[in-house]
Amino acid sequence: MQYKLYYWPGIQGRGEFVRLAFEAAGAHYVDVARLPASRGGGVAAMMKLMKSDAPNAPLAPPFVVAGNEMVAQSTYILAWLGPALKLVPRDAAARRWAHQLQLTVADFVDEAHNTHHPIATHLYYEDQKPEARKYSAAFLALRVPKYLGYFERVLARNPAGPTHMVGRRLSYVDLSMFQLIAGLRYAFPRTMARVEAEYPNLVALHAATARVTNVVRYLTSKRRIAFNQSGIFRHYPELDR
Amino acid sequence: MQYKLYYWPGIQGRGEFVRLAFEAAGAHYVDVARLPASRGGGVAAMMKLMKSDAPNAPLAPPFVVAGNEMVAQSTYILAWLGPALKLVPRDAAARRWAHQLQLTVADFVDEAHNTHHPIATHLYYEDQKPEARKYSAAFLALRVPKYLGYFERVLARNPAGPTHMVGRRLSYVDLSMFQLIAGLRYAFPRTMARVEAEYPNLVALHAATARVTNVVRYLTSKRRIAFNQSGIFRHYPELDR
Repeated sequence: MQYKLYYWPGIQGRGEFVRLAFEAAGAHYVDVARLPASRGGGVAAMMKLMKSDAPNAPLAPPFVVAGNEMVAQSTYILAWLGPALKLVPRDAAARRWAHQLQLTVADFVDEAHNTHHPIATHLYYEDQKPEARKYSAAFLALRVPKYLGYFERVLARNPAGPTHMVGRRLSYVDLSMFQLIAGLRYAFPRTMARVEAEYPNLVALHAATARVTNVVRYLTSKRRIAFNQSGIFRHYPELDR
Repeated sequence: MQYKLYYWPGIQGRGEFVRLAFEAAGAHYVDVARLPASRGGGVAAMMKLMKSDAPNAPLAPPFVVAGNEMVAQSTYILAWLGPALKLVPRDAAARRWAHQLQLTVADFVDEAHNTHHPIATHLYYEDQKPEARKYSAAFLALRVPKYLGYFERVLARNPAGPTHMVGRRLSYVDLSMFQLIAGLRYAFPRTMARVEAEYPNLVALHAATARVTNVVRYLTSKRRIAFNQSGIFRHYPELDR
């Protein structure tokens, strides 16, 4: 199966959770919007699908086309592709659990985005700096401990051991947790340096995931877009305590 | 099957999307946190599960217990229970589509919540009024048309006709769309009065859903908590243009 991923070409964003899954699984996928228009790519190719009259045209990227199927929403893309990519256990209860955890990751990612855009996504960060400072203070003081504390407990309670979020093998939730920790370290290096010793299982999961062969290959390739000031995780020192 | 729903007892909130599904399906469910402690209910009973050492203890309500299974996250609860409640078509592609739409509804609901709490959920509205005013202005000017325009197009393009979001029968997505329109009308009556003629299919869907026998029975019962100033949809006239 060849997959087509549609996402904004210049950022990791929510598409990165899907890219990491494709890469870790060694799947054959095309990152359509990053291809030149001469090869059927570019943002125009993505917008064409979003603006089409198809009954299931998505509101926003990321979305994935596989054969005749098109699916949007990062959490659901992962739940849908996880079994084929062998990135989720076979057991139905474990799959339900992975799906719920991914939704909670996505909730946290939304809040991480709001640290620099608390008022409106169409405005620049510079137009909402005082509000971003207030939002970030609460995010770092209360939300980061709430979510990371929860994910740390999830690892500690995994009956198969604290090396994976779900089950005993690498899953898409582990990959997303890797991305979450990497993003928080990029955006809030001072805070993370201060607090991450409280989350030893998460830190170990991040390190172990970064050593997975296919992940190493991806992270050191040009396919991995660097964190930057247009994505979800942005480094504004004034927002980091 | 008897279901147990766990959610904050004083608000509709995200639990309402699940309550509406149970009620429309005529399912046998217990709204645990609204029962007295003497009958095993109350918020304490809910917190006990959240604070338990169970491997799948949820971070936040709503969550549902059915037999030995416990599932959190409103969008996934609906995807999980939809087939048993007969609130989603049988066809796999239609189920995928319903799930994606529900996730997009949830994205919009998050933004609706942020209209009165753009800075931090632990602070009062009164502590973030200027920011709420800015957020709401952008929400009403740009986000409401974006989302409602999209959902209106989804209805118009439904191959089975514009009376349902997915397929030809009532689904959990229709029920959630009913709740979304009801909530927007409660929170932003002036704006909705001005703009809703642009969304005739959504308005008709809301009206038709409000006439479904089980929905009528629910909405006129004491089980339906009224919209109030503690929920997701709140009416602050100063936020409504």
